Order: sequence, then structure tokens, then C-alpha cells
Amino acid sequence: MEVTRADIEEAEERIRPYIRMTPVLEVEPNLFLKLEQTQRTGSFKVRGAFSFLTARPDAQRVVAASGGNHGLAVAFAATTLGRQADIFVPTTSPESKIGRIRETGARLHEIEGYYDEALDASRRYLQSADAVEVHAFDDPLVVAGQGTCGKEISEQIPDLDTVVVAVGGGGLIGGIASWVRDDARVVAAETATTNALGAALREGRPTDVEVGGLAADSLGARRVGEIAFEAAQRWVDEAVTVEDPDVEKAQRWLWREARLVAEPGAATALAAVLSGAYRTGSGERVCVVISGANTDPASVI
Amino acid sequence: MEVTRADIEEAEERIRPYIRMTPVLEVEPNLFLKLEQTQRTGSFKVRGAFSFLTARPDAQRVVAASGGNHGLAVAFAATTLGRQADIFVPTTSPESKIGRIRETGARLHEIEGYYDEALDASRRYLQSADAVEVHAFDDPLVVAGQGTCGKEISEQIPDLDTVVVAVGGGGLIGGIASWVRDDARVVAAETATTNALGAALREGRPTDVEVGGLAADSLGARRVGEIAFEAAQRWVDEAVTVEDPDVEKAQRWLWREARLVAEPGAATALAAVLSGAYRTGSGERVCVVISGANTDPASVI
Repeated sequence: MEVTRADIEEAEERIRPYIRMTPVLEVEPNLFLKLEQTQRTGSFKVRGAFSFLTARPDAQRVVAASGGNHGLAVAFAATTLGRQADIFVPTTSPESKIGRIRETGARLHEIEGYYDEALDASRRYLQSADAVEVHAFDDPLVVAGQGTCGKEISEQIPDLDTVVVAVGGGGLIGGIASWVRDDARVVAAETATTNALGAALREGRPTDVEVGGLAADSLGARRVGEIAFEAAQRWVDEAVTVEDPDVEKAQRWLWREARLVAEPGAATALAAVLSGAYRTGSGERVCVVISGANTDPASVI
Repeated sequence: MEVTRADIEEAEERIRPYIRMTPVLEVEPNLFLKLEQTQRTGSFKVRGAFSFLTARPDAQRVVAASGGNHGLAVAFAATTLGRQADIFVPTTSPESKIGRIRETGARLHEIEGYYDEALDASRRYLQSADAVEVHAFDDPLVVAGQGTCGKEISEQIPDLDTVVVAVGGGGLIGGIASWVRDDARVVAAETATTNALGAALREGRPTDVEVGGLAADSLGARRVGEIAFEAAQRWVDEAVTVEDPDVEKAQRWLWREARLVAEPGAATALAAVLSGAYRTGSGERVCVVISGANTDPASVI
């Protein structure tokens, strides 16, 4: 299930009218930030959502389970394109995120419990409804959409050596690695308690992990996707982990040094560089993807 | 006292090692944001401070009166270049800003009262000390430094029609207008209670105004500078005012739509477009300068 550069180019052509080309900031010499938190809906997820929907005109009714960035992205993309979206959110999601999904006009199903309960409810719904599920990460169209972020980075930063990406289920790193391939080093960043890719690479196959901690709301997939795993085996050069306090430090650093806000999941990639978990060489041109900022801005100081 | 494009080009050569090329985000089709809040020290002021200091190697000791963005910029630029800086801040400035000035290593003089008391104290100090004052806006080297922001905008946005800039003492708009000239429309944005340029243009000369309201901490100069006034008479096509609630709305819009933070003074330019105080035409390519974000991030939601 390889996602090719041609897949990503086609995804970009389809989604360009709906998404932003997010800017890059050289925050320190040779340290570049891809400001993907300025993307529509506040995270990269909308690339994958539009990629899926624009390639699937048959998907007039779509279903997603997520109280977070993926749910919001599917709700926004579907309503923008005149599709019907049913989003299943756990009642434990913060009201701010649920409220934003509601505002898109998508149909909201609030399910008592956590993500798994929302997912179960969405699957039951799918059995009776004539609708299509949009997976949060393990779908080739979704991964190709996220890959457009990697294509932009390659075009925006000449002579890039390394790109550092936070990993949850692996949609973003799968897409970026599928574009970048051997043109630059690809470094995966996880927290010690959201370590699905690290565990999969150690075991040689996607495997379940316990998740928790600061970044769990965006990186807390229990198992990395098959597409991401295959891409990571081929093109991810190093997978590093950071601790929650490193993530908080990275959030504070980003606000202090550049007046930018990142949610914990997005700050995880920056934490990998700032903490030295990924050690950059002299003159190495490194791009860190700031993948989202759907968080309370007061939390970054 | 015209600032020429050559002055701005020379300033850029001098300051390039010390400042960031800040990125541009096309937030809506044809609406571009120049993300100058991601500049070092959190505002454009550092361009002017470095421009002054790099052109004046004689200025080994410098003095500035400001508890805000200018004070921080001079403190940072001076200590970066190994100069001695004496910054006079009013005790009414927020401790967060005073603390950041202190951290640069500049000498901090905390003066009981408001800006005028700090300014008076700095002038008394200058009479006895062998030091040079760095004016916050009415200095050709400072204005040339701020003009580098205009040069970047011209290079970053092809076929730009209009640039919208908030005005306090006029350093930023003076510099941007001195670069842009007749290549694009230049629109000045002020709040109704920080209206020094509007008043000057009506009177035909810089004139004192009462200042107050939400944006007074960054736009609250009582009188616009002579350099800015002359540049504005020649190249500012329209000067508009917005109300404080428009500014707050613009801050919330920016967070909601792009996960970016702007201080009230910086959001004033965006408010001019969003409120319709400046009415954009169909297809008009407009750049709004987000000039700083030295504020409490919790204040933008």
C-alpha cells in the first residue's frame, strides 16, 4: 500500500482550492518551522480530509469518529463540499472542540465515554447507514493528502537535510516520508507515552501500546497505521522519544521566541530538537513541522 | 528628511544577520498576513533598533525610554551587539514586558509614573551621560530599518495592490511607505483613540492628540513623527480608524481562523479590513502587517 509521489501530486491538485499553503519560518539559522497550525481548522488534518472527499464523489455521506483535529477536519471538509458528515465525539472531548465541530453544520453524535466508545458507535451507525468512513490515518487518500505538507516543505526550503515530524497514528509522517523519501532524513518524534511507531519499529509490525500523558489527545493512537508503518520502515531514519516536560518546554520556547502557539502533539517534534533527543549536526538544515494549535493559548506560557 | 529605497537596502544589508525574514500567510484568497509578530523580540521594532545601532558604531552606550516593544528591541539589539543599553521604563508597564527587558542584560531604570515620566528621566540622564538616544520612530535610521519589512513584503507577494499598516508614532508606516511608494496603495489604520496620523493629516502638520483605549500601549504616541508625516503625505492613500471592539474582534478572528496571536496594536490593521473601515475591491491583493504579539495569549479568545 505504497503512496507514491504521483498520488501526492494528484491530491495536491484536488485540494489546493480548499487548503492553505502554510508558511515556513527560519526561527534560528537552519532551523525551519513549517507553520501548519495556521492551516484551516488549526491542523494538517484537513489536507487528508479534503484529499479523501475530493477523490470520492461517491462519498456523499461520511462518518468519522474523533472529538479532535480529525473530526473537525472531516466536518469542515464535508460541509465545505456539500457532503453530509456524521461526526461521533466522546463526551470527554473538550467542549471547545465539540463546539467548533458543531459550528460547521456537521451532524454531531455525542457518545458517553472515550474515543473507543465513539468509534464503536460510529461503526454501528455505518452498518445501517449508506455512508463511508473517513479513517483518521490509515487510508491511502488521507496519507496522500498529508503528503502535500511534505511537498510544500521540499519546495519551500532549498537544500533541506532533515524533517522532524510528530507521530500519532502516522498519517502525517507517512505522507511526508512518502514524498521526501531519500531526499532528506525523516525523523519521527513521539512522547514516551504515545509511542506507537517506536513500538512498531521495535516489534517489526504495528502493535498495540498503552497511551497517555500530555500529547495523548492528538498523538494517542494505540496502533500505528499499516501505510505509515511501511513508509516508516523504508524512509524514517530515526525515531526518537521525548518526555512530557520536554513538550511543555518546547511550547513555552515557541511562544517566547516566536510568539507562536502549538498544541502538545505539535510541540513534540520541536521538543525532539530542543531537548537533544534528535541531535542536529553543524549546518544541518532541519524543518520541524508545527502540526496544530487546537489548544488553549493560555496553556503555552 | 526623506528615507530612500537605497537607505532601506543598506539597512537591510546591515541588519540581515540579526533579524528574521518573517513569513507571509495567505489566510483567505488575496488576503495576506505578514507575520511580523514572529520577529525577534515579538515585534517589528527590532528592525529599526538594529538599523540604528549597526549604522552608529559610535553609539556604544544607548538610551531608550519605553516599557514596551521599542524598549525591548533596543535592549535586545544593544546587548546582542555588545553595546550598553539604559532602558527607562515606567513602573506602570506590565511586569512581563519589564522582565523581558531585564533578561537581555540591559540596565533597567524603573521610573514611577507613565511614559512621559520615563522619557523625562531618560532625557535628564542623557544630559550627564556620554550616551546616544534611540528614538522610537522619528529617526531616519530607525525608519529605514522598519522599511525593510516593506521590502520583504514587496518581494514575498507578487502583484500586491495594497498594504495595510497600523500607526502609532509612524515608524513602521513611514518605513513601509518609503519602500512601497506608488507601487501599491498604502493604508494607515488607527483606533479612534490613537489617532495621531489622522489628526496630523487633517491639520496638515503633526499635532498632539489625546490617546487611550485598547491599543494605547503600542499605538499611543501623542504626535506622529516628522519623517512618517512627510512619507504619509506623499504615499499614504487612505487613513482609516476603527473602534476598540473591532480590534478585539480582529484578535479573536485571527486566533479562530489561523491560530495566531496579535496584540491590539497589531490587530488594528486587520480590524481595518475585517470591519470594512477599509473596503477592499474584488480581486484586490491586500497585505495586512501583523506587527507584534507582545500580549497575554489568553487575551485573544
